[in-house]
Amino acid sequence: MTLFDPLFHDAVIDAIFDDFARVQAMLDFEAALARAEASVGVIPAGAVGAIETACRVDRYDLAALAEATALAGNPAIPLIKRLTENVADRNAARWVHYGSTSQDVIDTGLVLQMRAARAVLLTGFAGLEAALAKLAQEHRDTLLPARTLLQQALPTTFGLKAAGWLTSIRTVRARLDSALGQALQLQFGGAAGTLASLNDRGLVVAEALARELDLALPVLPWHARREQLVDVGLALALAIGALGKVARDVVLLMQTEVGEAFEPAAPGRGGSSAMPHKRNPVAATATLAAALRAPGLAATLLSAMPQEQERGVGGWHAEWEVLPELFRLAGGALRQMRETCAGLEIDRARMDENLSRTHGLLFAEAVTLALAPSLGRSEAHALVEEASRKSVATATPLLTLLQQDARVTGAISPAALASLFDPRTQLGSSAHFIDRALR
Amino acid sequence: MTLFDPLFHDAVIDAIFDDFARVQAMLDFEAALARAEASVGVIPAGAVGAIETACRVDRYDLAALAEATALAGNPAIPLIKRLTENVADRNAARWVHYGSTSQDVIDTGLVLQMRAARAVLLTGFAGLEAALAKLAQEHRDTLLPARTLLQQALPTTFGLKAAGWLTSIRTVRARLDSALGQALQLQFGGAAGTLASLNDRGLVVAEALARELDLALPVLPWHARREQLVDVGLALALAIGALGKVARDVVLLMQTEVGEAFEPAAPGRGGSSAMPHKRNPVAATATLAAALRAPGLAATLLSAMPQEQERGVGGWHAEWEVLPELFRLAGGALRQMRETCAGLEIDRARMDENLSRTHGLLFAEAVTLALAPSLGRSEAHALVEEASRKSVATATPLLTLLQQDARVTGAISPAALASLFDPRTQLGSSAHFIDRALR
Amino acid sequence: MTLFDPLFHDAVIDAIFDDFARVQAMLDFEAALARAEASVGVIPAGAVGAIETACRVDRYDLAALAEATALAGNPAIPLIKRLTENVADRNAARWVHYGSTSQDVIDTGLVLQMRAARAVLLTGFAGLEAALAKLAQEHRDTLLPARTLLQQALPTTFGLKAAGWLTSIRTVRARLDSALGQALQLQFGGAAGTLASLNDRGLVVAEALARELDLALPVLPWHARREQLVDVGLALALAIGALGKVARDVVLLMQTEVGEAFEPAAPGRGGSSAMPHKRNPVAATATLAAALRAPGLAATLLSAMPQEQERGVGGWHAEWEVLPELFRLAGGALRQMRETCAGLEIDRARMDENLSRTHGLLFAEAVTLALAPSLGRSEAHALVEEASRKSVATATPLLTLLQQDARVTGAISPAALASLFDPRTQLGSSAHFIDRALR
Amino acid sequence: MTLFDPLFHDAVIDAIFDDFARVQAMLDFEAALARAEASVGVIPAGAVGAIETACRVDRYDLAALAEATALAGNPAIPLIKRLTENVADRNAARWVHYGSTSQDVIDTGLVLQMRAARAVLLTGFAGLEAALAKLAQEHRDTLLPARTLLQQALPTTFGLKAAGWLTSIRTVRARLDSALGQALQLQFGGAAGTLASLNDRGLVVAEALARELDLALPVLPWHARREQLVDVGLALALAIGALGKVARDVVLLMQTEVGEAFEPAAPGRGGSSAMPHKRNPVAATATLAAALRAPGLAATLLSAMPQEQERGVGGWHAEWEVLPELFRLAGGALRQMRETCAGLEIDRARMDENLSRTHGLLFAEAVTLALAPSLGRSEAHALVEEASRKSVATATPLLTLLQQDARVTGAISPAALASLFDPRTQLGSSAHFIDRALR
Repeated sequence: MTLFDPLFHDAVIDAIFDDFARVQAMLDFEAALARAEASVGVIPAGAVGAIETACRVDRYDLAALAEATALAGNPAIPLIKRLTENVADRNAARWVHYGSTSQDVIDTGLVLQMRAARAVLLTGFAGLEAALAKLAQEHRDTLLPARTLLQQALPTTFGLKAAGWLTSIRTVRARLDSALGQALQLQFGGAAGTLASLNDRGLVVAEALARELDLALPVLPWHARREQLVDVGLALALAIGALGKVARDVVLLMQTEVGEAFEPAAPGRGGSSAMPHKRNPVAATATLAAALRAPGLAATLLSAMPQEQERGVGGWHAEWEVLPELFRLAGGALRQMRETCAGLEIDRARMDENLSRTHGLLFAEAVTLALAPSLGRSEAHALVEEASRKSVATATPLLTLLQQDARVTGAISPAALASLFDPRTQLGSSAHFIDRALR
Repeated sequence: MTLFDPLFHDAVIDAIFDDFARVQAMLDFEAALARAEASVGVIPAGAVGAIETACRVDRYDLAALAEATALAGNPAIPLIKRLTENVADRNAARWVHYGSTSQDVIDTGLVLQMRAARAVLLTGFAGLEAALAKLAQEHRDTLLPARTLLQQALPTTFGLKAAGWLTSIRTVRARLDSALGQALQLQFGGAAGTLASLNDRGLVVAEALARELDLALPVLPWHARREQLVDVGLALALAIGALGKVARDVVLLMQTEVGEAFEPAAPGRGGSSAMPHKRNPVAATATLAAALRAPGLAATLLSAMPQEQERGVGGWHAEWEVLPELFRLAGGALRQMRETCAGLEIDRARMDENLSRTHGLLFAEAVTLALAPSLGRSEAHALVEEASRKSVATATPLLTLLQQDARVTGAISPAALASLFDPRTQLGSSAHFIDRALR
Repeated sequence: MTLFDPLFHDAVIDAIFDDFARVQAMLDFEAALARAEASVGVIPAGAVGAIETACRVDRYDLAALAEATALAGNPAIPLIKRLTENVADRNAARWVHYGSTSQDVIDTGLVLQMRAARAVLLTGFAGLEAALAKLAQEHRDTLLPARTLLQQALPTTFGLKAAGWLTSIRTVRARLDSALGQALQLQFGGAAGTLASLNDRGLVVAEALARELDLALPVLPWHARREQLVDVGLALALAIGALGKVARDVVLLMQTEVGEAFEPAAPGRGGSSAMPHKRNPVAATATLAAALRAPGLAATLLSAMPQEQERGVGGWHAEWEVLPELFRLAGGALRQMRETCAGLEIDRARMDENLSRTHGLLFAEAVTLALAPSLGRSEAHALVEEASRKSVATATPLLTLLQQDARVTGAISPAALASLFDPRTQLGSSAHFIDRALR
Repeated sequence: MTLFDPLFHDAVIDAIFDDFARVQAMLDFEAALARAEASVGVIPAGAVGAIETACRVDRYDLAALAEATALAGNPAIPLIKRLTENVADRNAARWVHYGSTSQDVIDTGLVLQMRAARAVLLTGFAGLEAALAKLAQEHRDTLLPARTLLQQALPTTFGLKAAGWLTSIRTVRARLDSALGQALQLQFGGAAGTLASLNDRGLVVAEALARELDLALPVLPWHARREQLVDVGLALALAIGALGKVARDVVLLMQTEVGEAFEPAAPGRGGSSAMPHKRNPVAATATLAAALRAPGLAATLLSAMPQEQERGVGGWHAEWEVLPELFRLAGGALRQMRETCAGLEIDRARMDENLSRTHGLLFAEAVTLALAPSLGRSEAHALVEEASRKSVATATPLLTLLQQDARVTGAISPAALASLFDPRTQLGSSAHFIDRALR
């Protein structure tokens, strides 16, 4: 664990992508390969047990492996060397890694890690979606100002805001699930992607191995073709972006001058070293940091796609730390927003207060539209714009000014005019949209 | 058309995303809105014709619109102003843009442009896939060296290489099609995303408008939530990456020292200003340039996702030129690779020559595996490594050296040994993989 | 001019980087090359005039050039072909482009465009810096809340904020100036970077050509080595980032609930199509869009650096549109922020109002420090934290609560306590920092 | 150490940026702050010793600190809490961190780490530059084909290639040194950037603290203005890009079909798990991976620049792991290329062989130029183009074909024609360029 892991990451996801798990996943591939090859008679059945026994990460010195990786250029070469040494039975040892290549081990190992991460992330998303659905339901009538370009526009409801977040999160979760579904493919092509050293048994072994590992068998090996893997990285970045949208809104709502919603309080959370009274966003800040970091990592995966011929020089290697980093940041952002949304504190009084802060200007559009039938749209617009300007300049409620304007009173009844300034009448299809999102 | 458009872009895609088409798409939204609102009785039926008549881009001064865009902050505000002026019937004019907002116009206009681009791109992909399938079929037995880390590894076939390209292109085409399918959604939320000014008729109008435009109706407006739009950009970048992989391989095959495949010749194509004999890659170069540019554009879309509250400040605006640019680059890269693969020239003689360039080292793995049963894997590996080194140092065929080694001749018959050096025996599952890709 | 140019760009910079100017810059290279080569006797003096006469962009069909560029792979090849045809004197025509290569023309042309842009940008920066210095001077005593993590922290002055902006802008302007200074180098290497076809006269011609164009002569040609060019792109992106910081602050200050500063009003500026009263940020929004786009473009330039051997395949080509785009975005962001800062409207009343919004919590740190000597830092911190929480919960001024606490009154006099709540006493070194920035 | 650190990083740089060093650097700030404040009488001199004693990282539980960081939102808050507890003398303890803020500690700590890294990197660059100068000197006459767009163009020398690398590396080293020089600034602003809690002593303390730490005193605190810090990241990415250029060339030269230069051999280096004979690039591969990763990290730093008001929400936090990662990747790429260039193996025989591979087409430009005076440039070009095509089609040396063409023999003597095909006569200013680079 490094200094920033608990802030930016999720411990369960981190454990799936640490070196220990990475090497174990590679060893899982080797054990499954032995079983698969024995099952179709390519290697002796008697070799399997000894190989499996050696496929336990705690039997390997990871520091030594790291040093050897620097020499070999990838971790599979030294790992297989040590694995071969670790197989007690020398007759079995000769069948280690039979017919395979470094990239088969490393890529399939990564696929196994991704499968483990998928389950964790989907659980996290389910929690977040439940929290958001609850917010959307509970706050369907909680009024607050909608803000466009950070200017108050019209009233909306907090429920609608939460319904929007929910819809986004569902979309990116489905995208991630789909991308992962596509990417959980066996990598198995041997030295040149032809399974040459298995002669005419290559496909049979590949099928058996895919069954052993419960992975899909791809059309053909994908050593230097990475689209389905890169797509996972893109889906993670997309999810982080959508989580960042929620975080951005939370940060803006937490502003001292807005004060409408807050991350859940916890002892020691969000304090300031110098200012005892501050309530800093922490979860949203970490999530926004992730949303700043993910695009660059996604771009790296895309940049690395044009890999050379049958195995890339650098492009493949660039993925090794970058794709796991996207999982880690997604795990962290998801955890932070799940906890935030599950405990979000809402200050309805401040929302009400903010709604009335513009002396009724929020309802200018409604007035314009109400006047348009009689005055024409342009004239109505001009009239209301003028009155709005006066309202701001003189701090007079817009309603008051309009009540004094004969063009207005000639066009609309006093009661109808007043009702235009009740935010509850100005919610349009808000409730319908919430229903649609909750359905 | 700018100086580089014909090199980097596709003219049909460019026409879909130029200003003329962009403004027309926005006007198409306005006309459809009038029709939809009249159809459900929100505006008078009599207003529709006059509005539709004004919704033709050739009636607008695009330069003046551009200048006004700089003042207003978006093109919809001045466009609607001019549209209102252009509606001859003043009674009709007041119903222009009724209940809508700038972002509805701009986003839905973009969606309409994306729909047009989808058809063009899918046709382009179909052409590329057909060309690749033909290459895979025709060259299923065309031998050449597989290269890993740009070192010759083992023999493979050009058909397998093309089958790999085909599989990648199919995957990214399906991804793009799916992303576009998801993104072809109406944007319609009014000033604050609540359709407030349509009172209780918002959803009815939205449904009618979606029908008019033949677009999906989203769960709720997506003004500041951009995941399905950004996903289109990511899918475009992914497609460009996969096209870049094909281009990278072509460039490497075209190298003077490799010379195995070439872009189709055309008068004036790929010449050098100084060197009359050179045959420079042009299409592949343009495609690689696209593959370098797309990741940064995709990253921008991701970075722009955490948009503020009900409308973003800068994030939305960053998309306006960046997403079309990704379409343009994808259109260009697709066209270049389609033409390249449809006319790719293959030099079988150079492939054969290259296969024999290493004095048989390409078959070292096969020998190792053939010796492993008798000598053990490690010993076989060491023996062959030693012989390989000697072969390089003395420019002696590996086969000759092995025929002189008693350990080898004791383990394997002369005929079996010789057959290991026939590349046709070393193709493993290559043909099966091609069949799978072509199925 | 496209629809978004006036919003996102600067017209003068755009003119420097349009196709017309690009081709003219290439022709300027060719004319200078003829003069230089004649001046050292490599080509006949009599050839110069005819070549110069043909080096006027209005004699070229840019659309035809664009089409030919797609075939040739770069614009220099067809341009030189047409230039040669355009030289009336056939004896002169044979000396066109003598000893040079496409990349010499294209790169040096770009360098000439960059030199023109440098002057424009530096003038723009001077205007912005003057505006910022004025703001820093005029508002040295204008109090407003400092906000950390968007929470009000302590009082600061608007002058200090402007002084900070000024310091940043100066830094990035100096960086850009320095990067451009380094990059204004001649490119002249001939077909392979050796000036082979000039035999032993290459360096002499290069020196003469550098003098003709008033450019630095590089150590050696930089065809596939781009660091000094890429560095210009990085410096532009850095400048855009610093401009984005100013824009971000302006947008946040313009928020309805904050309302402390505003972009200058202009007729039609920042209006909303639906809401007549809104005052949307426009210049800051365009600048933030630029700040979202520049990083991806800068990343592209960096990604393109590892160019192949003596001329890149794709990497060079990726720069052609990306580097000019960075100039355009920088030009636009600079113009927008210069106009914004020159006319920024300040609302001191709202600043005062916002300062008192937290019932005195802004002064909590001051109280803590004042109490620390008597109570100890931890105890003081805890006491003030407790009182702050009570102040928030009960909407009671913090000062009132502290005046009722015996631990406080035992430690500090009533007058001293009250003075801690006067923001003017809490500005620390603010004025000194402003002085340092203005010096 | 993680699995990939020895491959992608440099151990010395890694040690400078690990958590241990990071926390120590923060504690170094706190100790220096105490000394500085005591030296100007702001805190009692007697407090210093006890604080200094507590400022040793081995007295802190980094795992606990990491957990607390997640709650607090930054590591300074819990570190200062524990530091205060660790100061044995309670009177001294109250003066810990006096007048400072989290960002002061974290930023200045980072600056101290960067200073340590600067020395290491500069030493590394000196080694690389020495190796490159040696290559340029030793191979000033080593002929090989120049390759543009990966097509053989004309002869060049390996010395010129190395001189080009050298020039690039010098440029980026100078840029990095300059950026670091600018960035080694104290961060010290207190809670809101005004040093409010130090009253009128803020600047005096700041000056004393800058002296204590031997850092420059900035014009004013730079809490939310990051240009000089981001510029370090950009300079690191630029350096990695230039190192990537060297690596790209090495990979291309190492290709089986080119075989002109090789990474130094080492036992176990660059072997293949399946193919005993392969000699894979390892150092260059790791460097290219770095060159793919750095642009995205640089883009993140740029994206994070528009930080909010007096302290950023997410932007600052995004830097914490990203900037150190750039140092680590730069350290690794530098080490790999230094070792590669110091031991690069050159195969002159292969270079010669490759030079003659095109049957003399490499000299086509020279012939064209030699014929141009008599035949005219266009005619000469056409003649040589035709002959070149015939040479390729019939595998006949170009010289032979030209000797049979009366237009040629009428224009140039047999001896002069033959000498055009001697690569040593076709090096132009190559030697001069090498001299300039070595000067």
